[in-house]
Amino acid sequence: MNFDSMWTTLLPIGRDPRTGGYRRFVWNAAEQECRQWFLAEAAQRDLDARTDQNGNLWAWWGDPDGADESPGAVTGSHLDSVPAGGAYDGPLGVVSAFAALDLLRERGVQPARPLGIVAFADEEGARFGVACAGSRLLTGSLKPDLARALVDADGISYAEAMERAGHDPTRIGRDDQTLEKIGVFVELHVEQGRGLVDLDAPVALAEGIWPHGRWRFEFAGEANHAGTTRMEDRRDPMLTYAMTALAANKRARLTGTRATFGRIEVEPSATNAVPSRITAWLDARAPDQGALDQLLADIGRQARDRAGRDGTVVDVRQESVTPMVAFDAELRRSLARVGPTSRELPVLPTQAGHDAGILAEAGVPVAMLFVRNPTGVSHSPEEYAEPADCHAGVEVLASALEELLAR
Amino acid sequence: MNFDSMWTTLLPIGRDPRTGGYRRFVWNAAEQECRQWFLAEAAQRDLDARTDQNGNLWAWWGDPDGADESPGAVTGSHLDSVPAGGAYDGPLGVVSAFAALDLLRERGVQPARPLGIVAFADEEGARFGVACAGSRLLTGSLKPDLARALVDADGISYAEAMERAGHDPTRIGRDDQTLEKIGVFVELHVEQGRGLVDLDAPVALAEGIWPHGRWRFEFAGEANHAGTTRMEDRRDPMLTYAMTALAANKRARLTGTRATFGRIEVEPSATNAVPSRITAWLDARAPDQGALDQLLADIGRQARDRAGRDGTVVDVRQESVTPMVAFDAELRRSLARVGPTSRELPVLPTQAGHDAGILAEAGVPVAMLFVRNPTGVSHSPEEYAEPADCHAGVEVLASALEELLAR
Repeated sequence: MNFDSMWTTLLPIGRDPRTGGYRRFVWNAAEQECRQWFLAEAAQRDLDARTDQNGNLWAWWGDPDGADESPGAVTGSHLDSVPAGGAYDGPLGVVSAFAALDLLRERGVQPARPLGIVAFADEEGARFGVACAGSRLLTGSLKPDLARALVDADGISYAEAMERAGHDPTRIGRDDQTLEKIGVFVELHVEQGRGLVDLDAPVALAEGIWPHGRWRFEFAGEANHAGTTRMEDRRDPMLTYAMTALAANKRARLTGTRATFGRIEVEPSATNAVPSRITAWLDARAPDQGALDQLLADIGRQARDRAGRDGTVVDVRQESVTPMVAFDAELRRSLARVGPTSRELPVLPTQAGHDAGILAEAGVPVAMLFVRNPTGVSHSPEEYAEPADCHAGVEVLASALEELLAR
Repeated sequence: MNFDSMWTTLLPIGRDPRTGGYRRFVWNAAEQECRQWFLAEAAQRDLDARTDQNGNLWAWWGDPDGADESPGAVTGSHLDSVPAGGAYDGPLGVVSAFAALDLLRERGVQPARPLGIVAFADEEGARFGVACAGSRLLTGSLKPDLARALVDADGISYAEAMERAGHDPTRIGRDDQTLEKIGVFVELHVEQGRGLVDLDAPVALAEGIWPHGRWRFEFAGEANHAGTTRMEDRRDPMLTYAMTALAANKRARLTGTRATFGRIEVEPSATNAVPSRITAWLDARAPDQGALDQLLADIGRQARDRAGRDGTVVDVRQESVTPMVAFDAELRRSLARVGPTSRELPVLPTQAGHDAGILAEAGVPVAMLFVRNPTGVSHSPEEYAEPADCHAGVEVLASALEELLAR
């Protein structure tokens, strides 16, 4: 299967040889190299390759601009990574898309409508802090002025980074012409938990995406000398933060939700100074909006209680939120039987945001396929899928597309 | 008093106009400007100004190289700051030294030995992580190879930074010629707690310096997706860190010691990833070595207990330690009556490291004077001393030096 040679070509791009992790961030050198890889794969297949005004990559089999055809069946994912991320989250869906197209051609499929392969820009939001920026700009749910003004850790703006990479930042924003070409979207993705391990199956269909968001917690106290200031005279925001991180974890464990503090900034960040300010970002997810609201309310209350005892002040701001996404139930039913056996594909919920979720919010019928991850680990070099399971994923994706291309 | 005009000249150098905090770090532009200020003050008074091979600044009244004189009476402190530090920690001792010299000349004092004013380099260790680098290099307690190899947050080495500032890094190290000129050292410093507020006195003598040190805690877990990884499947080192920070605070409160986590680094530091590694620095201090050892043992045990429950691993390394320093008791007795009233000067312990402590370890008779700080706050722009208390400090310092110069 062509899958393996494509995978081998993509694998070394932007990989840290020491840790095996990736730093493919939107508009950086490694990500640019991934884009070149995409365009080369499209060219090899005589596909019509385009970069839309928001930096998303497209490769079309058939003419998506044809006036009398149905809008296209689209598949793909993204090529960027989180910091020190794994190889599969994103790229598996793009490589599988090309491999599925090859399979369809081998099978002699004559599509009744165009097939599009997409690699969305900046799905992880690792560099500028907003996840799914490419698909959000496309659908208009991220405002162009807001996107252009985002800055990375080096103070470089999204507009500047995009321009340096040779793309015009003045043209980003909602793109109806491109949106109209997407009649249906199927995203294949490595599973980011152990659901398929427990089910002993290689591939599943997604049910929907939990509502989730990011909240910025600011804990303000008073900088002071770490030696001479008595413990009882301090207003140390590190303590309020520490208790909040533990409380968030406990609330999530007790309620079957998710709460994570994975990023924190300390001021003044000196070993011999009591901090004046801690900024920490909470990632929270729950099966429904009510449970998510309750989780945030509980964490916020516990943070404020502790702040009262520490003499500190807590301020909580929502930075982004993605509501519950239920994928198209009819589409799911029609794809349930495309699996490798006569059994229906298992159905799993997901706690991760995806470009598929952004398109679903914009009214596009969407389905997702998950491929088994034996470690269950994601966003880490440990992320993995067996080659046999990847091949099974390609087969299922090709069958799903064959079904959709016939309509 | 000349104190005020000197203070006004020094105050704006390296000050952040937004926060009022300083970033005078060894060999940076602001610190270089402070050095120029020192040399100008020395020149105005016809003092013999020198920069020793370790970058410490000296200004001598009388000839310190005179073969038949006693070694000098030296006073001073440092000009560098912690990040976002206050104006007084360090500079108050240097400005007071020049002002005290002026007072002695006004009083017509004829010194029986030379008077030296010193500004030690890099007392705070804010840039390269080792406190009192200038005095430690002078006494030989910091090895030159080790110092040269230290790197700042931008990856610039101590040797490189020193060379860029026009000083020869190959010549740093123990300097007996300079050490021999210090017969006795008196350091005046802003108090970094509320001891003098409670005693209702403007100036105190120091009893000694608590043993203290820095320990690096490494908490290792497993990076993972913040959404899809179930809480019970995680090995999140942030939780182990958070519990350790709370435990350290509690142990210090219960035992009358000090424990502070003011600096932390997170990997990979992504909002949507469970961290793989937390590195956190503990600053710990206690009235005696036994109490300090016990404090570290207790914190380490609680960290490992929690790591066992979190599935993480903790590694603790001592980065630096300064043993208990008891200042010269005879010198303290002889200076006890130089205060503004007939009462003896109060005596306070200190929990902060100082260049005076480094010299005391090297066998120099040392005394310290503290000037009242109404907020008790230090290492912050809130650090303060009333002008009247600063003037009282200069008077006491001048009287102490007069007593020492007569010998």
